[in-house]
Order: sequence, then C-alpha cells, then structure tokens
Amino acid sequence: MFSIARTVLRSARPAARVSRHALQRTMATGPSTFDWEDPLKLESLLTEEEIAIRDTAHAYCQEKLFPRILHAYRTEEFDHTILTEMGELGLLGPTIQGYGCAGVSSVAYGLIAREVERVDSGYRSTMSVQSSLVMHPINEFGTEEQKSKYLPRLAKGEIIGCFGLTEPNHGSDPAGMETTADQTDSGYVINGSKTWISNAPVADLFVVWARCKWDNRVRGFLLEKGMKGLDAPAIKNKLALRASLTGSIFMDHVKVSEDALLPKALGLSAPFSCLNSARYGISWGVMGALQDCIDRARAHALERTQFKRPLASFQLVQKKLVDAQTEVALGLLASLQVGRLKDAGPNGGWAPEMVSMVKRNNCGKALEHARVVLDILGGNACSDEYHIGRHVANLQVANTYEGTHDIHALILGKAMTGLQAFAS
Amino acid sequence: MFSIARTVLRSARPAARVSRHALQRTMATGPSTFDWEDPLKLESLLTEEEIAIRDTAHAYCQEKLFPRILHAYRTEEFDHTILTEMGELGLLGPTIQGYGCAGVSSVAYGLIAREVERVDSGYRSTMSVQSSLVMHPINEFGTEEQKSKYLPRLAKGEIIGCFGLTEPNHGSDPAGMETTADQTDSGYVINGSKTWISNAPVADLFVVWARCKWDNRVRGFLLEKGMKGLDAPAIKNKLALRASLTGSIFMDHVKVSEDALLPKALGLSAPFSCLNSARYGISWGVMGALQDCIDRARAHALERTQFKRPLASFQLVQKKLVDAQTEVALGLLASLQVGRLKDAGPNGGWAPEMVSMVKRNNCGKALEHARVVLDILGGNACSDEYHIGRHVANLQVANTYEGTHDIHALILGKAMTGLQAFAS
Amino acid sequence: MFSIARTVLRSARPAARVSRHALQRTMATGPSTFDWEDPLKLESLLTEEEIAIRDTAHAYCQEKLFPRILHAYRTEEFDHTILTEMGELGLLGPTIQGYGCAGVSSVAYGLIAREVERVDSGYRSTMSVQSSLVMHPINEFGTEEQKSKYLPRLAKGEIIGCFGLTEPNHGSDPAGMETTADQTDSGYVINGSKTWISNAPVADLFVVWARCKWDNRVRGFLLEKGMKGLDAPAIKNKLALRASLTGSIFMDHVKVSEDALLPKALGLSAPFSCLNSARYGISWGVMGALQDCIDRARAHALERTQFKRPLASFQLVQKKLVDAQTEVALGLLASLQVGRLKDAGPNGGWAPEMVSMVKRNNCGKALEHARVVLDILGGNACSDEYHIGRHVANLQVANTYEGTHDIHALILGKAMTGLQAFAS
Amino acid sequence: MFSIARTVLRSARPAARVSRHALQRTMATGPSTFDWEDPLKLESLLTEEEIAIRDTAHAYCQEKLFPRILHAYRTEEFDHTILTEMGELGLLGPTIQGYGCAGVSSVAYGLIAREVERVDSGYRSTMSVQSSLVMHPINEFGTEEQKSKYLPRLAKGEIIGCFGLTEPNHGSDPAGMETTADQTDSGYVINGSKTWISNAPVADLFVVWARCKWDNRVRGFLLEKGMKGLDAPAIKNKLALRASLTGSIFMDHVKVSEDALLPKALGLSAPFSCLNSARYGISWGVMGALQDCIDRARAHALERTQFKRPLASFQLVQKKLVDAQTEVALGLLASLQVGRLKDAGPNGGWAPEMVSMVKRNNCGKALEHARVVLDILGGNACSDEYHIGRHVANLQVANTYEGTHDIHALILGKAMTGLQAFAS
Repeated sequence: MFSIARTVLRSARPAARVSRHALQRTMATGPSTFDWEDPLKLESLLTEEEIAIRDTAHAYCQEKLFPRILHAYRTEEFDHTILTEMGELGLLGPTIQGYGCAGVSSVAYGLIAREVERVDSGYRSTMSVQSSLVMHPINEFGTEEQKSKYLPRLAKGEIIGCFGLTEPNHGSDPAGMETTADQTDSGYVINGSKTWISNAPVADLFVVWARCKWDNRVRGFLLEKGMKGLDAPAIKNKLALRASLTGSIFMDHVKVSEDALLPKALGLSAPFSCLNSARYGISWGVMGALQDCIDRARAHALERTQFKRPLASFQLVQKKLVDAQTEVALGLLASLQVGRLKDAGPNGGWAPEMVSMVKRNNCGKALEHARVVLDILGGNACSDEYHIGRHVANLQVANTYEGTHDIHALILGKAMTGLQAFAS
Repeated sequence: MFSIARTVLRSARPAARVSRHALQRTMATGPSTFDWEDPLKLESLLTEEEIAIRDTAHAYCQEKLFPRILHAYRTEEFDHTILTEMGELGLLGPTIQGYGCAGVSSVAYGLIAREVERVDSGYRSTMSVQSSLVMHPINEFGTEEQKSKYLPRLAKGEIIGCFGLTEPNHGSDPAGMETTADQTDSGYVINGSKTWISNAPVADLFVVWARCKWDNRVRGFLLEKGMKGLDAPAIKNKLALRASLTGSIFMDHVKVSEDALLPKALGLSAPFSCLNSARYGISWGVMGALQDCIDRARAHALERTQFKRPLASFQLVQKKLVDAQTEVALGLLASLQVGRLKDAGPNGGWAPEMVSMVKRNNCGKALEHARVVLDILGGNACSDEYHIGRHVANLQVANTYEGTHDIHALILGKAMTGLQAFAS
Repeated sequence: MFSIARTVLRSARPAARVSRHALQRTMATGPSTFDWEDPLKLESLLTEEEIAIRDTAHAYCQEKLFPRILHAYRTEEFDHTILTEMGELGLLGPTIQGYGCAGVSSVAYGLIAREVERVDSGYRSTMSVQSSLVMHPINEFGTEEQKSKYLPRLAKGEIIGCFGLTEPNHGSDPAGMETTADQTDSGYVINGSKTWISNAPVADLFVVWARCKWDNRVRGFLLEKGMKGLDAPAIKNKLALRASLTGSIFMDHVKVSEDALLPKALGLSAPFSCLNSARYGISWGVMGALQDCIDRARAHALERTQFKRPLASFQLVQKKLVDAQTEVALGLLASLQVGRLKDAGPNGGWAPEMVSMVKRNNCGKALEHARVVLDILGGNACSDEYHIGRHVANLQVANTYEGTHDIHALILGKAMTGLQAFAS
Repeated sequence: MFSIARTVLRSARPAARVSRHALQRTMATGPSTFDWEDPLKLESLLTEEEIAIRDTAHAYCQEKLFPRILHAYRTEEFDHTILTEMGELGLLGPTIQGYGCAGVSSVAYGLIAREVERVDSGYRSTMSVQSSLVMHPINEFGTEEQKSKYLPRLAKGEIIGCFGLTEPNHGSDPAGMETTADQTDSGYVINGSKTWISNAPVADLFVVWARCKWDNRVRGFLLEKGMKGLDAPAIKNKLALRASLTGSIFMDHVKVSEDALLPKALGLSAPFSCLNSARYGISWGVMGALQDCIDRARAHALERTQFKRPLASFQLVQKKLVDAQTEVALGLLASLQVGRLKDAGPNGGWAPEMVSMVKRNNCGKALEHARVVLDILGGNACSDEYHIGRHVANLQVANTYEGTHDIHALILGKAMTGLQAFAS
C-alpha cells in the first residue's frame, strides 16, 4: 500500500472541492449535466487511486501551501518545511518503486504537479527538480548504494537536490557543455559553472553533468554541499518563480570519490531522460496554474459589476474564459494520453517527442491564456493579492525552461520533416 | 456482422497507408519511435473494428472520392453516385442500429467523417446531413412506419435528404423561426422559407422544422420532392463547399398528411439534438481536412528548394507545420473523448456543451492552421491543384455553420458563468 | 495639366462618397467630430490634387469596375476594355513624366491603387503590372526609342504588358534564375520559362529577365506577342485573383534584335526596383480591399438582427470591426509616409526596406482582418454576392506575391541585425 | 524661449545616440540608407525644436533615470528628486503656456513621454499624472488664482499631484461615481473613496472628482495633503509599475473652502478631457518601452550564441524583432498624426476617439510584442537586470489603465456603428 493512499485515509477533513465532485458523480443522470470545471470529463479516465491522490494533493496544496505563497513570493524566501511536508504525503519521486517512494503512475505524478502548480509554479519547480531531476537519475542511472543512500532521504524531503546541466553559455544547446570532469587517483575532479539552477542555493545534493576529459562523453556526478570548491550562490531579485530558489553552481577543482559517478549515465541521453520526465510533469503543472487563473478571473467577473451588470455577462469576458478553459480541457487530455503511454512501459509507444509536444503546447497555451484572463481583473491585475499576475510571470519561465517553446518546435519540426533547423 | 466490416473483408486492395500503419504497429519496440502522423498515438485508443472502418473509409475516399473533387469543385456539380457508394460501404447513418445501418460506435462515425473531409468538407457535409440531420431525427423522433419507409433507402443512398432549420432572418437564433405549420382536415399545411440548406436542390426528402400555430411549439415534418408549393432552388457561385449543393427551400402552402409529422420531436431540443450529432461529426471531419493540408504543405516543403535548401529546413516553415500538427493531435483526442462518452450512453456524462467545445475548437483551429500552412505553398497557393486553398475556403464555412465560433463561445460562456450574453 | 485632373472636371456626376466627404469638411467645427471612415484624418495630409485624383478613381471604380467584378471572378474572363478605360483616366504609369503619362505623385499612385483594389485585387494587379512592372522599367532602364515606342501605347491601355521574373523553381529566390540570354549575330536568343505571370496570357509586351551567358549578369528584354518560340498559356481554375489573368511564359529559342535589350538594367537591382515600385502600390491597394470588407461587414451587421438586436450591437462584432479599422488607419499613414519620402527624391531617405515593411505589414494585416470580418457575414460568407470572401481569397495571394510575408520579415531581419537568415 | 530648449543649450554632454542620429542625417545620400531604429523616418516629420527636446529628454532619462530604476522597482520606493529634476528640465506640464511651463507642442509632449517610458512606465506614469491629470485640469478648468497658486510649483516639481477619479466599484464606468460633494456654509464637504490612484501616497495636491448632491453633476475639487479626514495609504507589493506609487484616497467629511472648486469643470467631460490628454501621452510612452525591449532583445540576440551561431541569425528570432519594430514604426506615426491634429487647435479635427484608437493600439501592441521579444532572452528573462520582464509587467497595466483595451474597443465600436455595447 502506497503512502499517498494511506494519507488519504488518514486525512480527517476532505477538501470542499473533493466532496462536491463526488456529489456530482452521484447525481449525474443524463446528457444534460455539464461540469464546466471538467468540461471533457477527464475524471472519467482516472482510476480511483489517481482521484484519491489528486484530492489529497489538492487539499494539502490549498490548505498548507496556498497560505504561504504571498509571503514567499514577496520575499524570495524558501520554506524548508514544504519539502518535508511533501515528503510526508508521498509527493516526492512518487513514481519510483521502493526506497520509501509511493510507486504511483505517471498520471498520478502529473495530477500532483497540477495541484501544486495551481498554487505556484515555483513550488512545483522545487518538487519537479527533486523528483524528476534528482531522484529520477539516481534511480535510473545510479548504483544500489547510491539509491539506498539518497533516495529515502530525498523522498522524505530531508535533503534537497538540484540538477546542474545548463551553463551560462549553453541554454538550448547543452551539447556545447564546458564543465569538465577529469580522473584523479581516487576519483574525479570537476571544474566549471552552471546557472539558472533551481534549488541550488539550498541544495544538499547536486546532480552535476560534466564532459569527461578522457573520452569526451557527458556523465553525471553526485556532489554534496560543503565540498571544497563548490559554491551555489542565489540569484536574487527575480521577476518570476520567486517562491523557488534559483542559483548558480561554481565548481573550482571539486574533488569527488569514485562512487560519485552515476555509472549507467553515458552521454546526453541521460540528462535528457531527466528533462523528459520533468517536462512531462510541467505539462500537467501549467494546466493547474492556468486553471487557477481562470477560476479567479471567473469569480472576479461574477462579483464585479460595471455598467450595472456583472463583468461575466459581457461577451468579451466570456470569450476569454471559454478560450482558456477549452485549452485546459485539451491540454489535460493530451498529457493524460502521454502519461498512459509512459505507464504502458517501453513498448507502449511513448516517445520523447510526445513530451515535447505536450510541454510546448501546454506551457504556451497556459501562458497565452493566463495573460488574457489577467485582463479581466482590470486595475486589480497588478495587485499580488489577486494572484493571476504572479501565475503570468511564472508561466513565462515555465514556457522557457526545460526547452523553450521554439526549441521544442524545432525538435518536433525535425521529427516531422527529417531535417534539423536548430542551427539554421 | 456490420456492413462496414464486411466491406473491409471484401476489399481486394488495401490502401498503401493502411498497410504502412500496420507495419509500424508490428515494429514498434521502444520509446524511440515517434510517428509524426499520429503524434499522441490516437490509434492506441481505437478498437480493431474502428481501425478497420477507418482504413476502409480512407481507402474509399482516397481512391474514389479524391479523383472527383477538382471537377466537382470547379463546376459545382453534384455526383449522385457518391451517395450510393457511401451507402454501399455503410457510411450513412452508421451509428443507427437496424434498418440496414451499420450500428457502429460514435467514434467510428467520427473516424469516417475525418476520412471524408480529408478529401473535401463538401463531401463530408453531404454525408453529415444525410446521417445526422436526416436519418438521426427520423430514428430518434419518427414512427416505426417512418423509420421503415425512409431509413433503409437513406442508408443505401438511394434517396437524399436535407434539413430545413435555418431561415433567412434567423441563423444563430433559431428561436425566432418564422416558418409555420397549421392543421388542416387531413394533415398540415406548411408555409415559410429556409436558406443555406445543404443537399436541398437534390433532396428527395426534406426534414423541415416549423412553428405550429396551434401551440406555438416547433415540430419537424417530412416533406417529399415534388409536393405542390415546395421549391428548392440551388445557390450557385459559392466561394466554398462547392462540391456540396446548397439551396433555399420555399414552402408556399405545402400540404402534407398527418404521417408527415415527427411525433416525438417537440420544441427546439429536437433539431438541436440533430445539430449536436452533426457538430460532433464536424469536429472529427475538420481535423481530417487540416491533416490533409499539413501533409500537402509538408510534402511541398520537402520537395521545394529555395536558397539551395528545402523549404522544410527553414525554422519559419517548421514552426507552421508543428503548430498545426499539434492541434490535430489535441483536437482528435478531445473528439475521441466526447465520442466515448456518447457511446457510454445517457448516463455516461455526455453533454451538449462538450460538443460545442470540440466543434468550436476543432473548426477554429483547423481554419487557423490551414490558413497558416497554405502560405507554405507560396505562389502555388492559388492553384486548385494544390488543394489546400480549397480546404481553407471550406473550413471557413465549417467554422461558421452549425453554430458559429462566437455562438459556441457564448453557449460555453453561459455554462461557465450561468449568465447568457447572446442578447446583451 | 494632367489627364486625371481633366477627367475630374469632365466627370458629370460626382460619386456620392466624394460629396459626402466634402460636406463633412465644411461642417467640421470642433474636437467632437470623428469620421470613422477616416479615423486619423489621412485626408488632412493629402493635397487638393491628390484628393481629386482619389475621388475620380473612386467614382470610376465604383461605377464602372464594380459592376463587372462578379462576372469576371466567376468566369476568369478578362475584359480588355478595362485597361483602355484606365488609360483614358490617366491611371496607368501615372507617376511617369511625359509620354502621355499623368506625372502625379507616388502618393496619388497609392491612392489610385487603393481605389482599384477596393473593388478587386485582380484589377489592381493588372494595373500594377502595367504601371510598375512594365512601364516603370522601360522608363527607368530603356532607350529613348523604347520609351517613345511603348510608353504612350501602354499609358493608353492600347497594349498590355507583363513582367517575367519568377521561375518555376525560383520564387522567393530570383538569384537562382535559369532563363538565359545568349548573343547572336543580330541580337539575342532567350531560353527558359517563367510562371505565375500576371497578364501574360493577354500580354502584347513581355518584359523578361534572363541571365546573360556572356557575363552571367541578369538583364531585361522586351519581347512581343507572336514571336516565334514564345508562348504564354493561361493558368486556369485559380482559387483567387480570378479577375486578373495569370499564365506561364515559355521561351524556346526566342530571337530578338539588339534593341530589345533594356540597356540601363544590369543585375537583379533592376527588377528589384520594379518590384519595389509594385510593392509600394500593393501596400496601398490592400488597405482598400480591407476597407471594402469592413464597410460591407459593418453594413451587414447593422442590418442583420439576431436575438432581436442588430449584430452590430454585439461586443464580439464591434471588436472585429474596430480591430480592422485601426489597422487600416495605421497602414495608410505608413504607406503615405513612404510615398512622401519617395516623392522627396533620392536624398529624401526612401529605402527599399521601408517598402518591405509597409508591403508586409499592410498585406498581412489586410489578410488577417479581412478573414476576421468575413465571419460577421455568418452563412452568407460563402456567397460571392457578399464580396468579402472574394477579397479574402485575393488577399492571401497579395500577402504572398512580390515577396512573401516571411521573406520580407527576413529582409527586415537582416536590416535589423546585419545577419542574413534566408539560407540558414 | 522655453525652458526645454535652454536646457538643451546648457546640456554639456550630448548623449551618444543623439550625435549618431545627427551624423546619419548628414550622411544620408540615397535610397539605400535604412535606419532600422527609425524605419519610416519619423524624425523627418519633427521640427528642429522637437528633435532637440527629444534628445534632451533622452539624455536625461538614460543618464539620470535609468541608473535608479532597478533599486526603485525592487523596493517600491519613490525618489522625490526625480520630479524636481523633471521640473528643472521643463518636462512637467510642458504644453501649458505660461506659469513657468514650457509651452511646447503636443508632439513634443509625446516625445518626452516616450523617452521617460523607455526607462520605465512607472516614471512616465508619475509624470503623466502630474502633467495631464493635475496641471491640465487646473489650467483648463481652474481660476486664475488656482493656476497661479499651483501651476508654477507643479511645473517645478516642488509639489506632487494626483487625480482621484476611479473608485473601488467603478473602473471602466466612472458614471457610477459614489463619491459626493455637498455644500456647506463656507464651502464643500467631500465623502467617498478612490482607488488605484497614482502618486496618491506622496501627493501634496489631490484633484478629486465628486458627484455634487445639489444637482447630481460631477465636479472637480482641489484637496491638499493634511486636510482633516483625508487619507491616502499606499498599495504595496504591486506586481508592476513598482517605480511609481499607487494608493487609495479615503475622504471622510473632508471640508474644503469654496476656492477648492474647479469652476469650469461641469460633468464627466472634464475628467475625460484629462484622461484624453493622458492617454495621448501613454500612446507615445508605451512605444518607448517597447523600443527598449526590442533594443535589449536585439543586443542579446547578437551577443548570445547557441548552436555556434548568434541567436540573431535565427529566423524565429528575426521574425520576433521585425514584427515588434514594425509596430513601433506604425504606432509612432499614428500618435504623431493625432498630436499634429491636437496642435492644430479645436478646428483641426482632433477627436477623442482618435486618442482611444492610438492609446488602445499602441498599448496593446506594445504589450503583445514586448512579451514576444522577452522570450528571446531565454532563461535570463526572469532576471530584472535584463529589464524586458519589467517592461512586460508594466505594459500590462498601461494596457489596462485609463481605459482598458476592451473599453476603447467599445468606444470605437460605438463610433463605427452608432450602437453602444458597453452594457451588453
């Protein structure tokens, strides 16, 4: 029995939204019921377990995370207890089997990401990094010792990890990596720098990718906080994702022992596998952020009266809401299908380009429509207490990181035409 | 055993595309295969029967329909044999059980519409009208005598039907209907006019909606060609949908007997039920038209060289193709989900607003992206032999008829907000 | 005194629109008057002569051209008398000084193009080719004998010219030209083919560009109908611009004498100079087409009632009209500014990139917004009697020919960055 | 002699950009020069005085304002010295004749707004409020005593003003105003509240609009800081415009003497006149902000290499830059034309709807394209040191305040159709 389900059972107070949904299911009797919040009945495609996980995550996020977001965003302060809370609920590395992880489906992982990002993309980023970019590579490419040593503590949120791939001169183009690893008598020495690394300033564990001098191949290394020559200063005054910490990683002759190497990761396909896992989660997450924007804009439009009528009765307002909600409905179905194919295993037909498609589409649409519904707030748009503006700022980053909208277009363009156009 | 499947077995020569797909299914071995033509593996969600129906329809459409389209579009001439061919294959009224109909799933119906519209929206319109707007209301609202009399002949394509709802002064607003029915000694007398009626000029059977003078309710009547006072002149020189005939219906004291009344249709919900069925099919069909545009634009871009490189290697061209293909992938998943819910029956949770969502989204996206990929043709765009321009013209109509893009926005807006904004 | 002005004086019946405008000018008394048809008072920036030319052109186009367009578009038949009528009014080659030409400003030329394209882009294309692509190169690059021989007859519309630059394999990339000219004892021999050539099937005079074998430079040649080896078959069944004839030019050892060479045209800069002149005119013309779409959509929206209110009172309809009209106002100011700079002479600061900017912007915006306002027609959109659909089809070609929207983006991108991205 | 020109003469060090422009003017010799920074040669339409004013403002903004913006935006702290510096340069109320104001053209005012907003929309807002919303109504609607008392000190920036029109329940709809004024023995008593008032927390002078109980008409009153019952708390933690202060105004029985009334302001046309002045300035300002985004994105794209080539050589990047720069060129010409009409006086044909058109278009386009070019920064987009993200956040507010994009659409829609759609 996995921990998330147990949590559900232990959960004394079900969230309001959950019970309402249950009610609707009971009352559904004919073709006339339309649930605008789930326009194409995504829920009918989920298992009972997945629904329970979603509801647990929803309740946690709304009750525990949401009350903290304004302070976090205003101050750029990171609250360490969030990760331990998530760990307690089983939200970290949830698709991993064993090592204290929940071992749930990729779809459940997506549903969790959506609930977290419904509150803030920064919180989801923190969680994505831990799950997809730190726990995933250790689980996929690590030794049994590495797994046993790190995964349980990462799963509990006791320690925080980060993922060092992007370099100052190489964002969309990791093949140009300049960070190097060289062999020493007792292990390896790492030199180089990484930037725009989520979680870095508070990370206990660093999954760092470096080009190995002896064969020019890229490999992953596990570095720990406090190692000599390792520094991870924070990037402050960010215009978005202020609830998650971002930093650089500077490595000046950082010496690690041989067991710091992830032995099964050879070449860029290893970090790309991590990115694909993270991107898949993002594709779900951003739909949560957009949904929150829609819900808030709709509530405002119903409440706010102009020219003696609620804003929500205006054609121009309704069109904005409907366009956005349509994209949520479509984007979720697409992510669900990719999740189901992932869960079907290696012969199920899952392909990285599918992740490019849903990451690109869902991020692009979330950003576009969050911006549109933001306008419904009128002058209140620039107040952080209305929240949509924060989502808008966050989603611009989500649309850019882990493969920009354009880079994924070119990945897919290559798949469609057989011709690469990155460098052209 | 249903007729479409039998047709598959009888089909001597499988279409090239069909066999290629089968091959891919056999060879799929890992996460690395990405089929750009089915980016999110819609096929994995279809039954074997649905796949067989799709392939049969595809082969018929490409081998029999496609060679006729240029002549039909240039001349606005309707080829009566098309309907009998479709009837022979079981493509007409395919979801109806009995009366010589195939009795297949709503999803299969959608797949057929997609294959037909891959050739031309006009052909699909002809078929949609016959299936959703003529056979459907007879099956749903007719007497056993009406069903027995008309459905088998309609299913075979022996007779052609049309659907008279829209009036010159009432397009988006059928509640304003001015056509009337009055009672006579022996039946009813119908007066009024309808316009933009597909199939009307060649129709043998007219499903006409009229406001009944005795109780002011809307009811449906079955009129037959040749009745005194009934005229259905063609609208010529159309700028789109030139392969399907369109006309007006003028009814000047048309007398019908009592058995012309559809007894179970009372109020506008009856014709709306027909429109919902048709709209659902359109949502699949337009994705076929867009896919054909993409396929042709892509082939052109691969073949055409400018500045010593294939057009397909240009970033601006790849982006156009990828944006379009993404919308096909998403739109099809959405229509599939609605189809599955329809097939799950009245308690399955299907709602008319879902149809509004997929009809609106898929038509809007098909039109938008067909226009974008048309530009890839450069100067050839205005040659009808490149076909995309024809689809673009057709899709503008598909986006407008059976509820314009804006009207469906307001239908959904009302569902989201509880406030109607049509008349305000 | 130039012929256009004389025509004004001779014009017995001033067009309705002209007199209304005059009235408005008289009555203007304060900041409260807003003329939605000229939102930013373009007229205040025109000379009296330019206004008179515009009004003459407007009256001619509405009274003489407009009644012919439906037949022409339906049949793809070209009416030769149109060119002679235009010639009589002084509309052909109007900026040329002498040789029977009007010698008016570039701004006046733009105003004429706008009025003609308000009726149909095909008519404007015919005129643009005659003026900018045939008369302009003869005037700029021809001998005195060539000018005297051809310009007066071209100005009168007695003979029709065409411009052969684009080749089957070289649309956006004329530098790849394959048509050749070689020297003979008595002149030159031309071999090759051209395609998508407006006016070609009815042309008496062919300005053909060929790569000269003796020095590999591109030069222009004047060919005449009936020369041995010269053939110009029509391209039929076009999906747009059906009121102007388009054809190919096949040249199989066409022998011309030495005086067929345009002596001052050396290299591609010569045909590019013609294209710049034509593109400038197009930038005005398409604004006329869009304005006609707006005017018709607005009139329909005011007349058509749905839900017991005129369509024009709906927010979604007003937004469409306003967005479009705004782009007309802006696009015209931009073209005016380029025209004024052209008229200021070589030191006035006119640059070809400016033409790229206004051609690209105005064509792109005209197409985009014509498509949007087309939707206001609802079901009537596909009737050619509502005219907007025809404009929409035409504008797609206008946006593509004489430099596609993307090619002009890359021309401007090179100007902005110093880096060319055509072949990369 | 006006103060801005004197300042020019006193200016010891001309800004780099200014001298480069002068150089280009000297060297311009033929049609081949294209200045991408001024694509349609706006400068050729400016007077020498206007160019001098622009250059002075540019130098001040880049040298004095720009170095302060990051601190101001991070801390939401307002630097009072900015207003006195602006006053010294003659930038405040610059179109007013006398009272220590510069008395320059509306075009010059626009050029100043553009230079200030090139640094930050918040700084421009502070200046716009002082000039258009405080000094303008005093000059237009005030007594000679009011003008003499306030205008010179406002012009010098010694005192700061704010404009209280918007109320918590009435943003787009000021006709619903709830703030009241009543007559007392010695003057008036004001009750009510205003919100989203720029400059309010630091304002010395409050131009407050209230509905007068005795005749139900709206009038303006001049309140001063420190009056009993007057409070103006700041709204903190804004997501945009953080360099300008925003607050509420609470008026609880604020008593003013009779000379606090603006005698010539009767009805909403008075505050609307102020808004029109401000909106006109905004239409220029936002073009400056967008230009700064373009310049920074372009510089980054030229410097940043990916796949071994500068980003600026990618088609997708060039298109973004070109689309944006085109809108700057068009938007500026439109604002210039409105400015020229304003300067031509009441019979010059200026109309408020023109301001709606350029405010709406320029704000909408600035926001849209600033967002697009922001993506060029990739991961750096969320660093405030790259500045574009700040402009993006600001421009969302500029697009919303002083009439949202939609409200101006409906104002123009009413002008085009004669039908109002605000409340429908």
